Amino acid sequence: MKTLETLFSRSAKMMKASEIRELLKLTRQPEIISFAGGLPNPDAFPVGNIKKMVDHVMERHARDALQYGTTEGHNKLRAAIVHGMKQIDDVTTDIHNIIITTGSQEALYLLSKVLLDPGDTVLTAAPTYIGATSTFLAHQANIECIPIDENGIRVDLLEGELERMSRRKKLPKFLYLVPSFQNPTGVTIPPDHRSKIYDLVCQYDLLLVEDNPYGLLCYDGDRVLPIKAQDTEDRVLFLGTFSKILAPGFRVAWSCGPAELVNKMSLAKQAVDLCSNTFGQYVVYEAIHHNLLFPHVDVIKRLYKEKRDAMLDAMERYFPKEAKWNIPQGGLFIWVRLPYSINTKDMFPRAVANNVAYVVGQAFYPDGSGSNTMRLNFSHSTNEQIEEGIKRLGMVINDQLHKEGLEPEFITSV
Amino acid sequence: MKTLETLFSRSAKMMKASEIRELLKLTRQPEIISFAGGLPNPDAFPVGNIKKMVDHVMERHARDALQYGTTEGHNKLRAAIVHGMKQIDDVTTDIHNIIITTGSQEALYLLSKVLLDPGDTVLTAAPTYIGATSTFLAHQANIECIPIDENGIRVDLLEGELERMSRRKKLPKFLYLVPSFQNPTGVTIPPDHRSKIYDLVCQYDLLLVEDNPYGLLCYDGDRVLPIKAQDTEDRVLFLGTFSKILAPGFRVAWSCGPAELVNKMSLAKQAVDLCSNTFGQYVVYEAIHHNLLFPHVDVIKRLYKEKRDAMLDAMERYFPKEAKWNIPQGGLFIWVRLPYSINTKDMFPRAVANNVAYVVGQAFYPDGSGSNTMRLNFSHSTNEQIEEGIKRLGMVINDQLHKEGLEPEFITSV
Repeated sequence: MKTLETLFSRSAKMMKASEIRELLKLTRQPEIISFAGGLPNPDAFPVGNIKKMVDHVMERHARDALQYGTTEGHNKLRAAIVHGMKQIDDVTTDIHNIIITTGSQEALYLLSKVLLDPGDTVLTAAPTYIGATSTFLAHQANIECIPIDENGIRVDLLEGELERMSRRKKLPKFLYLVPSFQNPTGVTIPPDHRSKIYDLVCQYDLLLVEDNPYGLLCYDGDRVLPIKAQDTEDRVLFLGTFSKILAPGFRVAWSCGPAELVNKMSLAKQAVDLCSNTFGQYVVYEAIHHNLLFPHVDVIKRLYKEKRDAMLDAMERYFPKEAKWNIPQGGLFIWVRLPYSINTKDMFPRAVANNVAYVVGQAFYPDGSGSNTMRLNFSHSTNEQIEEGIKRLGMVINDQLHKEGLEPEFITSV
Repeated sequence: MKTLETLFSRSAKMMKASEIRELLKLTRQPEIISFAGGLPNPDAFPVGNIKKMVDHVMERHARDALQYGTTEGHNKLRAAIVHGMKQIDDVTTDIHNIIITTGSQEALYLLSKVLLDPGDTVLTAAPTYIGATSTFLAHQANIECIPIDENGIRVDLLEGELERMSRRKKLPKFLYLVPSFQNPTGVTIPPDHRSKIYDLVCQYDLLLVEDNPYGLLCYDGDRVLPIKAQDTEDRVLFLGTFSKILAPGFRVAWSCGPAELVNKMSLAKQAVDLCSNTFGQYVVYEAIHHNLLFPHVDVIKRLYKEKRDAMLDAMERYFPKEAKWNIPQGGLFIWVRLPYSINTKDMFPRAVANNVAYVVGQAFYPDGSGSNTMRLNFSHSTNEQIEEGIKRLGMVINDQLHKEGLEPEFITSV
């Protein structure tokens, strides 16, 4: 038809395939070792136990599990989440504070829908999760960023920024953080900083969105409790998901927050998809009920810790000394900073030509900075791929440094 | 927190629990026979075959079926839908024209998102599906309605309205129709009217959204092909779903339309939920691939035809002669018109007091008319519930007529 293009809404006219996604399409060839995705490893799926639970659901609950469900989600699952959040995260909550969503992405969408008008401000760390910021931007929000260091968002800068915003009466609609094993940097906000952040959130009467997909995937030291655990003022919306501790294919996640906010998200969800898939909710519930879910987290942690260590070890051996990185204590990602002379987007074709891929770090900076950074995923590749891929990437970085006229020192072992 | 209410977006402030949903909450008690829902009957779920397919997926494809999928959906399922639409609906299409959604509700949401700006007009029939119009309204659309008769939307009035709209240069963003066994009335647009509608759509260069959840559930006569089958100009977005022919619990539906539109819907879906649940998509694909899906439709048709006939038979016996209804040739619903003196919303508490429920017909009229109508669902109840529920409802209608001072004739048999 002639006029289709003219029919698109203003927001549709602004929608474009993200540059990052287009770059990543280049990396789908089988010969490319990709550290670009954020996928769990299929070896981490408890296939045998999921099969048992699927069979159980089909044998005992087929008529309900195959039917439409309520918008808020399967009540037994919501109750199990209330119980689990007490046991695991020391969060006291109630079923009315829980809504099941089609992945945490839907939670990010629904909370944007019910909180953001065009021009509203969201405050976040930089770099931060691109799936969140792109959703905020789709709602025409204005994103303000606070830099992070090895302790996550810089609390001193956050305090100053909130004071400035408050003076100008331009406080954000909410503060968005991934406090544990952040995507993309892997850094974790330590307990004392969490308390300080919560104090600030209370002082400025803010809503905090605490996105916690990786919180249980802790490989070293003590796991830090979510900020939600100290939420005596009911001002934290906590996003949890079963994608990283069971399997993403069921698309079952939850939000836990102020009942009034969760209720609005539920009203928005009625228009968006009516209810999330019932079958997956039943399977997840049975996995929790049969105590198959949380013991399995230890299996995943062993698998990913080994992969993290394999990647760190290979980086020590193959990356030039100019490359800097942190040692994430959990999660799925390592963050690499190269000399400012290197633009990782410009380097990307060279990486692809050498059959290795990463995510250009700039994608995670709402302000477009971070051109010298990259995100590496260690969860999805085999250990052999990690060794070979890091070797290739080390060469690519060295070549790029060389091209830039620097004198790289090729470290073959440490 | 003090300010939560003040943080809500303008659209969230407008969100209210629908009056209908609140009424329906009254009907959840087990003693109430409810004809109010639109649920498939669990007896219609091919539990044995679904179990076989679920086992097959877990044994052969677990690592992929439990992983994230692409936003557009599982490619094998999209290809199977392309093939099925040719075989069953005589629609020639391509995988690039197909997107998998989390139920057709998500398709309605995504198409609204990519087509509607506040104040845009959607043209539809009245009455029509409330899940669609409430989504259009959530996007602040202006809804214009054409009345329906026993042949569906009044084509003569549609023609006049389009001419008027065209003269005023206020053509709608799209025309939304449920041409087969419409929700809520059960009426079907006959082939010659479909051709006339398609001609009008071409003449005015319009986009047509053809929502087809019930198309295969035909109990009498020849099934009518969708309007999409004559879409030589690529201007029909067809919405299909597996909810009514397999099971709703997987939340797997599809849209088939212009590639440019489907592509925009996919971009919107990235922000909404990233991808629909992979596991359900694999199960649906295997059911098609093993030829278990379409033969099962005959089983569902036999079951629902019997229930439709049981309800029609009971209505003949228990409803007063003042009540009028159509004989739907398929789908899930019967539409009842009572004398204008009866307001079915006012009558609702009396029905609930007598342990029977329906949907107030007014809910399906965007202009708030239809106060003398009601929708009855015949798919979900047992035959015994249909007999007893219609008996109760007949008494309620008679009482209401009596209360209104009319002289009801209680027809006990025909």
